[in-house]
Amino acid sequence: MKPLYGNAVVGQSGGPTAAINATLAGVVRGCAEADCIKTLYGMRNGIEGFLKEDLTDLSAFFDTEEKISLLERTPAAALGSCRRRLKDHTTDKETYERILEILKKYDIRYFFYIGGNDSMDTVLKLSNYAKDNNYELRVVGIPKTVDNDLMVTDHTPGFGSAAKYIAVSVKEMLRDVAVYEIPAVTIVEIMGRDAGWLTAASALSSVGDGIGPDLIYLPEVDFDMDAFIADVRSALSRHPAVLVSVSEGIRTSDGEYVGAKGSATDAFGHKQLSGAGKVLEGFVKGEIGCKVRSVELNLPQRCAAHLASLTDISESVSVGKHGVMAAISGESGVMATILRCEGENYSATYGTADIASIANGVRSVPRDYINEAGNYVTEECRAYLLPLIEGEVAPVFEQGVPKHIIIPR
Amino acid sequence: MKPLYGNAVVGQSGGPTAAINATLAGVVRGCAEADCIKTLYGMRNGIEGFLKEDLTDLSAFFDTEEKISLLERTPAAALGSCRRRLKDHTTDKETYERILEILKKYDIRYFFYIGGNDSMDTVLKLSNYAKDNNYELRVVGIPKTVDNDLMVTDHTPGFGSAAKYIAVSVKEMLRDVAVYEIPAVTIVEIMGRDAGWLTAASALSSVGDGIGPDLIYLPEVDFDMDAFIADVRSALSRHPAVLVSVSEGIRTSDGEYVGAKGSATDAFGHKQLSGAGKVLEGFVKGEIGCKVRSVELNLPQRCAAHLASLTDISESVSVGKHGVMAAISGESGVMATILRCEGENYSATYGTADIASIANGVRSVPRDYINEAGNYVTEECRAYLLPLIEGEVAPVFEQGVPKHIIIPR
Repeated sequence: MKPLYGNAVVGQSGGPTAAINATLAGVVRGCAEADCIKTLYGMRNGIEGFLKEDLTDLSAFFDTEEKISLLERTPAAALGSCRRRLKDHTTDKETYERILEILKKYDIRYFFYIGGNDSMDTVLKLSNYAKDNNYELRVVGIPKTVDNDLMVTDHTPGFGSAAKYIAVSVKEMLRDVAVYEIPAVTIVEIMGRDAGWLTAASALSSVGDGIGPDLIYLPEVDFDMDAFIADVRSALSRHPAVLVSVSEGIRTSDGEYVGAKGSATDAFGHKQLSGAGKVLEGFVKGEIGCKVRSVELNLPQRCAAHLASLTDISESVSVGKHGVMAAISGESGVMATILRCEGENYSATYGTADIASIANGVRSVPRDYINEAGNYVTEECRAYLLPLIEGEVAPVFEQGVPKHIIIPR
Repeated sequence: MKPLYGNAVVGQSGGPTAAINATLAGVVRGCAEADCIKTLYGMRNGIEGFLKEDLTDLSAFFDTEEKISLLERTPAAALGSCRRRLKDHTTDKETYERILEILKKYDIRYFFYIGGNDSMDTVLKLSNYAKDNNYELRVVGIPKTVDNDLMVTDHTPGFGSAAKYIAVSVKEMLRDVAVYEIPAVTIVEIMGRDAGWLTAASALSSVGDGIGPDLIYLPEVDFDMDAFIADVRSALSRHPAVLVSVSEGIRTSDGEYVGAKGSATDAFGHKQLSGAGKVLEGFVKGEIGCKVRSVELNLPQRCAAHLASLTDISESVSVGKHGVMAAISGESGVMATILRCEGENYSATYGTADIASIANGVRSVPRDYINEAGNYVTEECRAYLLPLIEGEVAPVFEQGVPKHIIIPR
């Protein structure tokens, strides 16, 4: 195949992670090495910014190894993000015409889009539209999501770093909660609306000393309030400090989120939902009467780049580079993937997959990764998870805090 | 003075921190170097365990540099903790007699107690009781508290590491919240019931790139709900992503905690208080109507040893060693302190202070460390805080998570 000469553009979309910029760095590295790509533009706030022609010259900005290496260590989306999902070109012709106009204006032949499920849908639509309009364009999606719930890829960039942060934070909290002799329950609420991968990773806190959470509940299994109280009572009978991990998305058998079973009202009449951890905190307090606290790991679990997994960051860079190589070799309408190699020691390789096989599926934690009682994960699950959190990426500290890179406007 | 020969005992009391074990390591190191101290015992769960004769031979256990060094990197209280405060010996004669009995049985002449305000009170009472009963005992308190609210000492061991975790986490969240273009307010609730030192440290997130929280509210200034909404509106008019740090202990002028102005009720009728962050989240949602989220940094801020400050950890070791040296030189009924040296570059030295001057005071953030509007900290405050978070302590990672030491029973 004869090479396709022109410029490239890259965007970031969906929720931020600690590794989405590492993938951006991979695209920057891949494009810099490619003879057929002259300039790599970055679109601000994903497709939203592209439509406003809000583009920045990344080839010019990333002119030193130091800058690219800092980008790999900077959490969240350095180009900004958006939640916009393109409609079908039959219902929103105008938007597609505008895209084509800008592509032509900047002679863009390579379009890289880093994101989750919704972003892959955009990749597919754009690839098809360009083909239908005889504009030679290679559109490649590169996955990211802390939730690890995309199909086809063995795991998603960003997940390993979030999982590492959770394993380490839970390990440190296990030390903290164990200092007193009085019975106390700590409930840790972890991200994951539909998939329990991140919550499962809390089991890795036991690496080294064998002390992990007492109970782990994932959204893949119906949550039973009474069985939960019985489980907690049983744990309290063994030792005073009990720690429980729960996914934010746990639901009772009627399909209702546990987090929706409580609401808060303030002195001014405003109301809001409580969240799974808070509801279970109140429930244990009411039913058992011991000291209880809930901890929501919240935003830090997806942006704690200071504790990123080396496996995750280096794979995130590699999968970004692989996306560029796939596009150069002629692929379009595909997503780059990470594949786990066979063998005793963990290693990964990269591939691509049809977007159609990914776009609308959710990869849940398989039932055999969860114990029969539905309150812990199995050894097989741990074995899948462990390599993904291994290795560390040293932050560049300056006056006590990590240095980040901000892409100037 | 002729040296006092005998054994020593050490205990940890009050809430855990990332550095309380570093101080324990300092006591271990100090005692190992002291010719007059034969065996150092550790009491489990502070004075509670001492009364039960629950002692462990630390001199025997800490027989390698590797173990002591791991102790310096292990968060929370490796010996366990308690919240018990000794009553006066006139009202609880029995307890003091029991203490004296155990001291004699183990030939303990040195008593080290690592803790906060309440623990210092125990130190003073015990020192006086031994003196009155002609039992030669040197009782020295060594401070710890993430809150930094003890009198006399320039700052407290444990504070610098918590402050560093807060500065770094807020910095990472500032990256995270800035990715979207829609107006959104993030409220970060930080520990500190009476003193705002930890919340003030969130200002250090701007080191390097100049991007910090938009607003910072400490408990030292009355909180005004209307002024707060006006402040948030004004910040939103400058940029879409607004981040606000608040102390858990902020109070309105009538003395009521903001966190008490809301309550949550679950489907089962259990009720609990909301906390400052949650109440303000609901308030902003109701008054301004934009996207709002609240993040409670919770337990990780006091136990995140993986991100400990080197300044804090090395000073925590040194102040522990200094406590041992003070006792050997004849002091009793005192607390070891950290003193900031004069000069352009930060350095510290160690001293002791009368417990009486410490026991019941709370060191708040001075008014001139807070701006006139009461919604930010001053440059002077930053200058005080910055050296305390500098430097890093590399955790010993094993299969992706830090290695901790557990003192076996």
